[in-house]
Amino acid sequence: MAREIERKFLIADQRWRDEAVGSVAIRQFYLARTGRVSVRVRIIDAVEARLTVKSAVPGMIRDEFDYAIPVADAVAMEALRSGSVIEKTRYRLPCTAGVLTVDVFGGDNAGLLIAELELADDAPEVALPDWLGREVTGDARFYNADLSERPFAGWSAAEKAAAAAPTG
Amino acid sequence: MAREIERKFLIADQRWRDEAVGSVAIRQFYLARTGRVSVRVRIIDAVEARLTVKSAVPGMIRDEFDYAIPVADAVAMEALRSGSVIEKTRYRLPCTAGVLTVDVFGGDNAGLLIAELELADDAPEVALPDWLGREVTGDARFYNADLSERPFAGWSAAEKAAAAAPTG
Repeated sequence: MAREIERKFLIADQRWRDEAVGSVAIRQFYLARTGRVSVRVRIIDAVEARLTVKSAVPGMIRDEFDYAIPVADAVAMEALRSGSVIEKTRYRLPCTAGVLTVDVFGGDNAGLLIAELELADDAPEVALPDWLGREVTGDARFYNADLSERPFAGWSAAEKAAAAAPTG
Repeated sequence: MAREIERKFLIADQRWRDEAVGSVAIRQFYLARTGRVSVRVRIIDAVEARLTVKSAVPGMIRDEFDYAIPVADAVAMEALRSGSVIEKTRYRLPCTAGVLTVDVFGGDNAGLLIAELELADDAPEVALPDWLGREVTGDARFYNADLSERPFAGWSAAEKAAAAAPTG
């Protein structure tokens, strides 16, 4: 199984919307997070739920363990979460080299948009869409787990201005 | 679904061994633990694995969410754990009123034996076996999650003497 490289970008302008081919509504939260692991529950379009254990330990062959669970379980587990619930609409965009999505956050993170590009690590170099903004790969503030602990709504005006998508 | 009452006891003597009708080898560890939840991985007889989310929030209708996962996943997740691995052999004993087990711990908790009696909360009063020792229900030191953080091997001599099973 090829490892994946995940790159994250802010959004420079709204042209991506013309390319979007579908979307799902995601509601997710974290049951726990340690220096080694995060445990996430995700509800997709209110009809599908996943329990995901993500490794924060470098060098593991598998860094994610993902299981389908009943939606009712996921809903009940919301009371057990740490941090706030992440609400976002995930748009899928055509991309021949990998998977390209734009997350439009709502709730406590309204105003934030993040594009994600997932490529196999042996994929050839690709031309990036020119509506992508600043790359924020590795910037922990934009990790969903961090957003659940420190949502966009609570960022300073300067931080917000640097991260928010232009509306033009 | 009736809620369960779980009572825990130390062991007064070895007569329980004559009653044991079967056993399973359990290897378990915790991925994370917060004030609200613990996330446990358990491997049973090396052929079955479970991922279990346990609530620490009082008053929830469901306090446990339990899923079968591939054994290979559970083995790989051991690298993500917090605390030490709990190793124990769980013996099942006949009990008409509920489920009666004795856990004989190994590894970092060798020397510790704990009996557990699970009863539906509407079950009639039962006579307790006379080989049960001191009740330790609610004593956090004997919770498996606590034993993973503070194993029996590291207890003081006095604590150990008070908890260890007599060998006679």
